[in-house]
Amino acid sequence: MNFHIMTLFPEMVMNGLNTSIIGRAISRDLLSIEAVNIRDFAFNKHQSVDDYPYGGGAGMLMQAEPVYLAYQSIEESIAKRKKESQIENTPANEEQTENNLDKKKTRVVYLSPQGDTFNQKMAEELAQEEDLVLLCGHYEGIDERVLEEIVTDYVSIGDYILTGGELPAMVMVDTISRLVPGVLHNDVSAEFESFQDNLLEYPQYSRPEEWHGKKVPAILLSGHHANIEKWRREQSILRTKERRPDLFEKCELTKKEKKWLEEVEAQKQK
Amino acid sequence: MNFHIMTLFPEMVMNGLNTSIIGRAISRDLLSIEAVNIRDFAFNKHQSVDDYPYGGGAGMLMQAEPVYLAYQSIEESIAKRKKESQIENTPANEEQTENNLDKKKTRVVYLSPQGDTFNQKMAEELAQEEDLVLLCGHYEGIDERVLEEIVTDYVSIGDYILTGGELPAMVMVDTISRLVPGVLHNDVSAEFESFQDNLLEYPQYSRPEEWHGKKVPAILLSGHHANIEKWRREQSILRTKERRPDLFEKCELTKKEKKWLEEVEAQKQK
Repeated sequence: MNFHIMTLFPEMVMNGLNTSIIGRAISRDLLSIEAVNIRDFAFNKHQSVDDYPYGGGAGMLMQAEPVYLAYQSIEESIAKRKKESQIENTPANEEQTENNLDKKKTRVVYLSPQGDTFNQKMAEELAQEEDLVLLCGHYEGIDERVLEEIVTDYVSIGDYILTGGELPAMVMVDTISRLVPGVLHNDVSAEFESFQDNLLEYPQYSRPEEWHGKKVPAILLSGHHANIEKWRREQSILRTKERRPDLFEKCELTKKEKKWLEEVEAQKQK
Repeated sequence: MNFHIMTLFPEMVMNGLNTSIIGRAISRDLLSIEAVNIRDFAFNKHQSVDDYPYGGGAGMLMQAEPVYLAYQSIEESIAKRKKESQIENTPANEEQTENNLDKKKTRVVYLSPQGDTFNQKMAEELAQEEDLVLLCGHYEGIDERVLEEIVTDYVSIGDYILTGGELPAMVMVDTISRLVPGVLHNDVSAEFESFQDNLLEYPQYSRPEEWHGKKVPAILLSGHHANIEKWRREQSILRTKERRPDLFEKCELTKKEKKWLEEVEAQKQK
């Protein structure tokens, strides 16, 4: 999967994504990440990309043209790559190839508090794309006309105000990368399925057995795998119910688990 | 306000927060940000900070002790700073000073998908703190016992899985910093109040007047300030209703605006 991040701060983005998991995936050709500097497409000698908003108001706005030209350069490089790989793989007649290329528009995500809220399900869906363009706004925003012309998805990572779209883009790249097949080892990827079950993770303990007078729960030292699994699942259920009642409503418990939970709660009230 | 970020990746965090707004605020002594490397508090010669989880399972866990020692070093430096500034400001008797210092515990946020969801209101509340410690987990998590001992707040930036707590910590620092008095110019801070009204921002336009055949809405060129404000508010209302019905339910419209909205919708259905 190829991420193309349109930004005024390419170094910030690349530095922040320099984690071991992503680094390994890039070296194994599972991922590519490029940060395209919108300022490289400024059309005046001062390399400015912003101007005052019409109708007045605070701050500056990113202008349409540099954003559009940066987008065009990405689209051209994607088209070139696809064409080369198609010619390599199937030496079919050229016209047909062109048609195939035109069929699917690259998805362009504008990071904005105005967007749909990002979540794991959206990440799974976006992880199916071959290319994903992420557009990071700055200053007071971007000229509406270029957004209308190129953006396919408006996405917010949460209901809070950030300085620019860079951190949200990094959050999306990190989350989505982990879902690209092969990026995580299978054993690691299994770990976070609990969250997809709408259950929070159980508490975990490492050495030493006793720390600050607190002992590791005895069951974890028992070596009895089935009992450990049961205990962990029960801890997840209790924790989700307490901390995230909204998730708890969506999680599916077995009849046995429901009965157990009723008993625990009856016990508490005594 | 002073941020203390406990992490295994201090460079990533500091690079990602190197924006102009935060940089200016630091040079004006409105903010300080330090990244404390948990690995510096490893207690063995291999500088390892992780170990297998008791009871089995995938991956490694961050151990309690290095996390605790890193936290202690932060608490000590905070206490030292407070004591020095109190002695400077009021040469009162020492015992009383000590008592005052002990009264308020520093808030320690653990970034975790298990936490309460971060939002602008939580950011406003946390911006009142003098010190804020952010603890970034990695690997499969952190030994539960140290979390119980030091963490005051469990916070999630959204329902998605990330590699570690670093990006969420950066998101929190960026959002909260903008709310510290003096960090933003007043004119800029006014801009995002629209969001706090539960309304999304109106569309914005900059030069040129015509781009790709699309003209800037004539009203924005009219110079009639009151009409422009009215148009912008109406655009915000329409946009919020369309894109974020959940926010729209919470926003307060005047009687006039409600009537106007009814008319617009009646018009649409014709």
